[in-house]
Amino acid sequence: MINFNDAYSKVLEHTLDLGAGIVALEQSEGRILAEDILADRDFPPFDRATKDGIAINSKALKEGINSFKIEAIASAGMPQQKLSDIHNCIEIMTGAVVPKNADTVVMYEHLEIKNGHATLLKDAIAGQDVHPKGSDVVSGTVLLHKNTRIGPAEIGVLASVGKSGLKVKKLPKVCVISTGNELVEVSEIPLPHQIRKSNVLSLCAALQREGIVANPIHLKDDKSDIRKELSHILETYDTVLLSGGVSKGKFDFIPEVMADLKVGKVFHRVAQKPGKPFWFGVQPDLKTVVFSFPGNPVSTFANYHVYFLPWLYSSLGLEIRNEQVFLNGPVIAKPPLTRFVQVKTDNRKGSLWVNPVRENGSGDLTSLVHSDGFICLAPREEAYGVGELVNYIATK
Amino acid sequence: MINFNDAYSKVLEHTLDLGAGIVALEQSEGRILAEDILADRDFPPFDRATKDGIAINSKALKEGINSFKIEAIASAGMPQQKLSDIHNCIEIMTGAVVPKNADTVVMYEHLEIKNGHATLLKDAIAGQDVHPKGSDVVSGTVLLHKNTRIGPAEIGVLASVGKSGLKVKKLPKVCVISTGNELVEVSEIPLPHQIRKSNVLSLCAALQREGIVANPIHLKDDKSDIRKELSHILETYDTVLLSGGVSKGKFDFIPEVMADLKVGKVFHRVAQKPGKPFWFGVQPDLKTVVFSFPGNPVSTFANYHVYFLPWLYSSLGLEIRNEQVFLNGPVIAKPPLTRFVQVKTDNRKGSLWVNPVRENGSGDLTSLVHSDGFICLAPREEAYGVGELVNYIATK
Repeated sequence: MINFNDAYSKVLEHTLDLGAGIVALEQSEGRILAEDILADRDFPPFDRATKDGIAINSKALKEGINSFKIEAIASAGMPQQKLSDIHNCIEIMTGAVVPKNADTVVMYEHLEIKNGHATLLKDAIAGQDVHPKGSDVVSGTVLLHKNTRIGPAEIGVLASVGKSGLKVKKLPKVCVISTGNELVEVSEIPLPHQIRKSNVLSLCAALQREGIVANPIHLKDDKSDIRKELSHILETYDTVLLSGGVSKGKFDFIPEVMADLKVGKVFHRVAQKPGKPFWFGVQPDLKTVVFSFPGNPVSTFANYHVYFLPWLYSSLGLEIRNEQVFLNGPVIAKPPLTRFVQVKTDNRKGSLWVNPVRENGSGDLTSLVHSDGFICLAPREEAYGVGELVNYIATK
Repeated sequence: MINFNDAYSKVLEHTLDLGAGIVALEQSEGRILAEDILADRDFPPFDRATKDGIAINSKALKEGINSFKIEAIASAGMPQQKLSDIHNCIEIMTGAVVPKNADTVVMYEHLEIKNGHATLLKDAIAGQDVHPKGSDVVSGTVLLHKNTRIGPAEIGVLASVGKSGLKVKKLPKVCVISTGNELVEVSEIPLPHQIRKSNVLSLCAALQREGIVANPIHLKDDKSDIRKELSHILETYDTVLLSGGVSKGKFDFIPEVMADLKVGKVFHRVAQKPGKPFWFGVQPDLKTVVFSFPGNPVSTFANYHVYFLPWLYSSLGLEIRNEQVFLNGPVIAKPPLTRFVQVKTDNRKGSLWVNPVRENGSGDLTSLVHSDGFICLAPREEAYGVGELVNYIATK
């Protein structure tokens, strides 16, 4: 049995480099950039009016002029115009190019317009309400760095610089496997000794949130069937997530079959609760990474969030965030087991407090819906007390 | 001009009831339940072994017996067996039904098995390692309430109770409209006075995270075209998000066209920065709700998160979460404008601190990628100082 810190380190030693591919901008939400994104021009690309009103030359202001003949109208989308006389003005709309010979915008609210002349109702300051060319960024500046997760704001930037297609990290091909003869399909009415599959559906939904469309497969508890199927799966996928089949039961064939298929065991059994029988290995020739989780829902869910997600993020070049929260209630984590305790978070005047969620053993499916994460407690003799700062792993 | 609190209240007074529809379980991630979900049987549905080992009758323990003849093997997925003699045992695997006449499980780690007999190496406690039938929930219990957002944990529960199809809230049909003659497609090379569309792509990506596939449409600054197109759009969609065309410019036709199309103006212009020219209205016959945002990226993004998302969540029956954070740096919010300031959050030993993100006016597209939310500051003479608790709206 290995301790939690060693198990976690070993998982992160076996990340995969999955390479990069091109996706359309509209398909890129949630993906991870595999290239730096540069400004293809200055932003803004021209001296841009930020108000509706008139564009004037500040020299006229210095000369004490406060009433301007309107020469023309400049609206957004029109090529740059030219103020022919600096004592005149051009009406200008937000987003329009400030005309040549003009450098200052005065908004309608500060103007009276009559008989083709605009008169200032308030002093204007040279350069006001102009967003100068290149003042946000100059052409060639890196706007988004490689390894950035693409969200709505990033999509705005990518659109602005014309990236209708872009290089993103490839996602792993993932196979999610359930084992156990007691499992039947969701649409079936189970016999008294049977239960419906649920872990694989939970895992597939969790993977979907990472943009991964996983393939769910069920294996019956039959050693030769499992061997045959797994052999094919190891060749086809980058990563295999199994749920069940790694305990000490007579029908828990997974560790044995993995050995047969030359999947190198990195570790089996971690000093943790829940999820102690976790088996982790790598097929060195195929480079397939295998996460074999114990079959009960809370164990599978905890191990997925504690080990698989950091492995995935690390493989994609993302930073792994560590969050700390205040514990609101005593919790015991006696040696030698590290504990993952389901909690519900509460933002209490700017500080994050977590309440442990009552659970009825690791087979308790319903407790997961009442929690939004796990806290990770290192083993120690003394109980963890109210107000202690502990590590938190979000699941919602 | 209306103040922020009134504008926010008025938006929430115009939520829509969009009804419900059936989706397949595999498609339900992120959707909102439109029905209560009940346990269709007890959970666990039988007395379930939680360890691999032997099942015994605790009466034998009381009689001082500590070595048990093995009668049979019970594995997960097998119908319930019966211990014929309470002085014997049945080998049992995790997930299996505890046999009739047995009530206690002893794991292999606490046993020595030799010549068809299992001998206890440690005292056993009556009932140990059995997860009793109905101890999590009894049949008929509400497991998930209507208006719950469905995530991976909820999908596990839904699968367990056989909901291969389920009733969820319908999402609004949303049309996202850009206006402005200066805009060109992302794939085009803009002329010096042009810029590429970006707001609509940002908005569509943000809506995609809510499960909404929005239709992006561009309207040129031509009043009769806008009127014609909008008339059709108002009939086709539940909600229209516009970006641009609501300022005081000569080509900002939206408010006028809305009036022509009998879209009742609820308000136009809010005492806030950014996003002051925000126009909000409802077509009472069609019940179409129109959010018309000012055209610059930061204004659109702020208004979407400040107004549209709470409106959407409220329409779907979700609770709107209020988060508070500590401000790390002085910020000015002079009357009469409420300010939305872009910030980056930092979990500092369990407390959430936000740093204002330097921005260069509301036309600054790149600042959004450096922030993870907005803080909302009510107007007041005195500057907001370091350590003040302020309201936070997440955008990432």
